[in-house]
Amino acid sequence: MRSRISWTLGWAKASRGCGADAASPAGRAPNPRPVGWPVVNTRTLVKQLAALPDGPVTVAGWVETVRDQKKVQFIILRDESGAVQLVNPAVRELDPEGVSVGAAEAFALTEQISALGHGTFITVTGQLKHDERVKLGGLEVKIETLEVVTEAEETPIAADSSLDKRMDWRFLDLRHPKQNLIFRVQTTFLHALRTYWVERDWVEIQTPKLMASASESRAELFELGYFEGKAYLAQSPQFFKQMAQPAGLGRVFEVGPAFRADPSFTSRHATEFTSIDAEMSWIDSHEDVMAMHEELLVHGFTAVVAKHADEIRELFGVEVTVPTTPFPRIPLAEAKEIVASRGYVVPRADADMDPEGERQISAYVKEAYGHDFVFLTDYASSIRPFYHMRREGDPSITNSYDLIYNGVEISTGAQREHRIDILVEQAKEKGLDPEELGFYLDFFRYGVPPHGGFGMGLARLMMLMLDEHSIRETTYLFRGPTRLLP
Amino acid sequence: MRSRISWTLGWAKASRGCGADAASPAGRAPNPRPVGWPVVNTRTLVKQLAALPDGPVTVAGWVETVRDQKKVQFIILRDESGAVQLVNPAVRELDPEGVSVGAAEAFALTEQISALGHGTFITVTGQLKHDERVKLGGLEVKIETLEVVTEAEETPIAADSSLDKRMDWRFLDLRHPKQNLIFRVQTTFLHALRTYWVERDWVEIQTPKLMASASESRAELFELGYFEGKAYLAQSPQFFKQMAQPAGLGRVFEVGPAFRADPSFTSRHATEFTSIDAEMSWIDSHEDVMAMHEELLVHGFTAVVAKHADEIRELFGVEVTVPTTPFPRIPLAEAKEIVASRGYVVPRADADMDPEGERQISAYVKEAYGHDFVFLTDYASSIRPFYHMRREGDPSITNSYDLIYNGVEISTGAQREHRIDILVEQAKEKGLDPEELGFYLDFFRYGVPPHGGFGMGLARLMMLMLDEHSIRETTYLFRGPTRLLP
Repeated sequence: MRSRISWTLGWAKASRGCGADAASPAGRAPNPRPVGWPVVNTRTLVKQLAALPDGPVTVAGWVETVRDQKKVQFIILRDESGAVQLVNPAVRELDPEGVSVGAAEAFALTEQISALGHGTFITVTGQLKHDERVKLGGLEVKIETLEVVTEAEETPIAADSSLDKRMDWRFLDLRHPKQNLIFRVQTTFLHALRTYWVERDWVEIQTPKLMASASESRAELFELGYFEGKAYLAQSPQFFKQMAQPAGLGRVFEVGPAFRADPSFTSRHATEFTSIDAEMSWIDSHEDVMAMHEELLVHGFTAVVAKHADEIRELFGVEVTVPTTPFPRIPLAEAKEIVASRGYVVPRADADMDPEGERQISAYVKEAYGHDFVFLTDYASSIRPFYHMRREGDPSITNSYDLIYNGVEISTGAQREHRIDILVEQAKEKGLDPEELGFYLDFFRYGVPPHGGFGMGLARLMMLMLDEHSIRETTYLFRGPTRLLP
Repeated sequence: MRSRISWTLGWAKASRGCGADAASPAGRAPNPRPVGWPVVNTRTLVKQLAALPDGPVTVAGWVETVRDQKKVQFIILRDESGAVQLVNPAVRELDPEGVSVGAAEAFALTEQISALGHGTFITVTGQLKHDERVKLGGLEVKIETLEVVTEAEETPIAADSSLDKRMDWRFLDLRHPKQNLIFRVQTTFLHALRTYWVERDWVEIQTPKLMASASESRAELFELGYFEGKAYLAQSPQFFKQMAQPAGLGRVFEVGPAFRADPSFTSRHATEFTSIDAEMSWIDSHEDVMAMHEELLVHGFTAVVAKHADEIRELFGVEVTVPTTPFPRIPLAEAKEIVASRGYVVPRADADMDPEGERQISAYVKEAYGHDFVFLTDYASSIRPFYHMRREGDPSITNSYDLIYNGVEISTGAQREHRIDILVEQAKEKGLDPEELGFYLDFFRYGVPPHGGFGMGLARLMMLMLDEHSIRETTYLFRGPTRLLP
């Protein structure tokens, strides 16, 4: 039987033709293969054309525009990496005598290009030519063959469509270079964060999103039927990343979804969002968490600036810079005084900030210190969850912080209370039932190191980095009270 | 106000004492700081001791055992990186004359160590001494001060506890070096996969887990109340990773949770699991997906072998090796013949394999080719989802595969049908309602490149890599029909 089993890619080549009517352009030119691009692919990415010599290439993507002039036709072809001009000298009449070799094909190609609709996916073979006169990248491809892979119905959205309509057609909206760039920047940013952690021996965890009880509060909780009983969707990985501390994992991180049945329609809230979480053992206070947090962000911003600063400037008009450390730290009570001295008295009965206060303190920090970030520290115990550790000697405040970036809160961090008797007291004081918290409280009965961490919203951070106005722009598929589709 | 705002870590040092009763041992020795370890931490990890010279150190972790001999006391202290022997010459009697300096302290320390319970978290300062006679790593730490950070109740599990009982106390179970290693190996593996993708310009996506309809099938679907309506938990990111293709993102990956209301109690099934997903544009067939898939796995295994081969051998008795490429490929029908020729006729009415058949074909491949992996290809259309592309010229089979690793299926991959008319036909043929699939079918109406990808179960892969017998061992917190806690 041995001979019938295929071991090499020769099998794939032999069986080419599967899906070939749509997928496989015949006679692809043997392109120079860019280093690092998987061997399975024979097309050239648009961004790789600049480095290639004049000669045969295959490109593939979608038709952004067609300029169908009398004597010459231009196609702007876009793929995930950029846009390129394709050119074809129009042959408008079929040579009735059949004198010119290839005249029928040239006429057919001209007709084919004239019929191309916006959004059509095509594969083109042709001759790459570097030419400084071409505005778009200083190069163009003279078309030899053009294959229509899939045709496109007329696009339902336009450049000036409402955000809501663009969300309806998110898969078309994402074709815009700005939207594409958001997710490439996000990829770079997340990978830099994870690399920071992995290089320092942190452990990645995947905590369950199905829970037997609420993780944060009874409010804003999604409930589902679970076989004979009920389950709840995790509002955060809080309990489970803390579990890693008595489990002896030391330092853990997770990037995963969190769910809040939040009926708000603000630019900053979603019912499902990606939460970046870290939790570390053996801290002395929340200051250790902040020191790691700012170092981590520097790592992420450094990677983004190195790879994308030019593109971001071009498409968003934003100059992303690497923040300096340490970030400014201001105790919350003092921040409220500063804001009041600027003429804004936070209209809240409790000790907390509000969004306008966050904008104001951020503006102050920007003016006074030129910094985009500020840690607000020492939040009152009355406005923090029961699991935040309270200050030794002053239990009215917690060892906690919020991180404000360009005027918006993106993260909450804290040292956690790890002493079981105090933890139980704090839970009772907040009106929680220690019985229901039983499994969580157990984490503290068998030995646990002092620890702390933070949770940070990815879409908010990306929104503020790129000066966008809603997390709908920086979420792959936004979920809100009236938005479950697509 | 400027002067009141703290800019440096000096603030943290000045305010030491927050949580200090539990967290901050007084008078920590100024340890040499290992390169790459965050500046916020002054303890030394156990695994770093070997590289340090004799002298003062601070270590912290939990008490694994105490050997309380008459003349000398030994503590085995474990942290996330390993175990170390701590030693103290016992002083069993209080010097009543007060002659010896420090005698009272020495007596108190001895008493303190005698009282230590298993699992207690402690911080110890002392003198590191390299000594070849010490079996555990050839070094020990002579205790100078010992601080109990948190005491531990008596552990409710033992080495021979049932798997189910260990799951009840997962946070204690994870303290075992084997369990700890599983998650460090997983961290290395996942980071290597992501690095493979990121270095090749793939885009990371976070697809929503809240959906308006089923993603795979009406069966095994979790439903929840969603404001005035209903939502469903994603059974896979299938539709949304495909959405990235008409969206022009090119090549995308995701590592995230997936949910199945699966009532099975097998060693391979969970109601929530971590799915590794990839989807790529411009493929010619599923062979392009397989070529990427095997290259990706080689990348992951190479990283695991480089970092953990010795530990895995020691703790699991397993020799992890990097698989060679290409992996063997066997069409499914042929695999069933091979299995039958070995005496096992798959007892199924349909064209599919069964778990025993997968074990048998895997055993065959191991015997014949010495390979742990095998791609079973060309699954019948009758047993594949509507969105798998069928073979050009033979629509009875699909351009799809399963990947079998050490006898168990860990992944399904395929080229997707991207031609809308054929896709609608295939959906209808499977008894699906194109109306309900509307948002998904829309992805194919406005231009889309040929594409394909795979989904792969992380816990299964880890289970098979480490020769464990259940995904409960390789899942941080397992979720099953009767398991929602902790």
